[in-house]
Amino acid sequence: MERHFDEELNELKARLLLMGGQAESAVHKAIDALKKRDAGLAEEIFAADRSIDQLEIEIDERCLHLLALRQPVGQDLRFITSALKIVNDLERVGDHAVNIAQSAIKLAREPELKPLVDIPRMGEIATRMLTEALDAFVRNDAATARTILLEDDEVDHLKSQLFRELLSYMIEKPETITRALELILVSRNLERVADLATNVAEEVVFIAEARVVKHHMEDRSAT
Amino acid sequence: MERHFDEELNELKARLLLMGGQAESAVHKAIDALKKRDAGLAEEIFAADRSIDQLEIEIDERCLHLLALRQPVGQDLRFITSALKIVNDLERVGDHAVNIAQSAIKLAREPELKPLVDIPRMGEIATRMLTEALDAFVRNDAATARTILLEDDEVDHLKSQLFRELLSYMIEKPETITRALELILVSRNLERVADLATNVAEEVVFIAEARVVKHHMEDRSAT
Repeated sequence: MERHFDEELNELKARLLLMGGQAESAVHKAIDALKKRDAGLAEEIFAADRSIDQLEIEIDERCLHLLALRQPVGQDLRFITSALKIVNDLERVGDHAVNIAQSAIKLAREPELKPLVDIPRMGEIATRMLTEALDAFVRNDAATARTILLEDDEVDHLKSQLFRELLSYMIEKPETITRALELILVSRNLERVADLATNVAEEVVFIAEARVVKHHMEDRSAT
Repeated sequence: MERHFDEELNELKARLLLMGGQAESAVHKAIDALKKRDAGLAEEIFAADRSIDQLEIEIDERCLHLLALRQPVGQDLRFITSALKIVNDLERVGDHAVNIAQSAIKLAREPELKPLVDIPRMGEIATRMLTEALDAFVRNDAATARTILLEDDEVDHLKSQLFRELLSYMIEKPETITRALELILVSRNLERVADLATNVAEEVVFIAEARVVKHHMEDRSAT
């Protein structure tokens, strides 16, 4: 029985959403482990990342299969090639969750430096951006995708604010250096998650409008 | 006059090599600017990055064009979809060069912390990995690509060694904190360049052998 191309595309979307949900939940859980100083919870993320890696391989195969057998053109072709890139991005989100989990495990062994406020806030925005971007992707909603591009600035702002704060800790109390450094690395990982969500949003605009919005803001600093 | 598909594929390879050369040279130049404490040289990298971004857009278009018009299957299909991913990776290498250039500009304003040895060494290995991976890509040489996967460990080793050294600087002399921190961020950027070169090498193996070598070493820590 011949299956319909539309049905196959819908399945591809469903698998991408599943992968996106897992990547987002891995980041959430990593931040949670960091906040609760719970090394056991942090370790769960390593298994979650393996599942994300498996989905990457499976979805890549699906995309290649559709390209070879259906030989799509126009919007369908752009959708599938964008899916290949988005899968790459989601896999990296999983890697960032693993990095954060590793920091959480190290920090759980040391006395608490300070209650975390900015990092959970960065995590919330970055994962919300990711969810919104994937939602915009399946709904082919370029207008929403465009709004996501703006949220990235808020994450960058929080990152800079946190950096200054942690720097003064380090200078005033050298015994905090290792811990403060670890938190700076966590914030860089969250910044990258927001950047990857931005990439996904750019792909959505590309699919919908066949216009390249990448490299749209030359003044956006690459920090 | 109809052009040959082979000719178009060769052009695609040439453009990818050009983009790879520019990305590699941007990283080289950024490390050079860091070593020579030359903010003017560092600023040249921003223009180089814009050229890399332009090439990304152009090569993406070429790939989509080939997929739509030639409807390739088998190895050619895998080559073109891998090219789409590699272009993404190279664009990120350019972003990392920009990050390093920004660090070079900041550090040129401050007294020298120490002569740089490990960072130029990391930069050499990471850019060599990138050149080798792209070379392997155009020659469809999976054997060479596999050797590149091993070089990544050397970069990780240098990163950890440098981290420990800079950490002792920071703890012993708090006035070095800002500068040492900047160098830690530079080393993280170089580590990511090596990771991206590893991604390219994995794609080469994938094209040649249609086997997924991603996530091949579960013990490779994602730091």
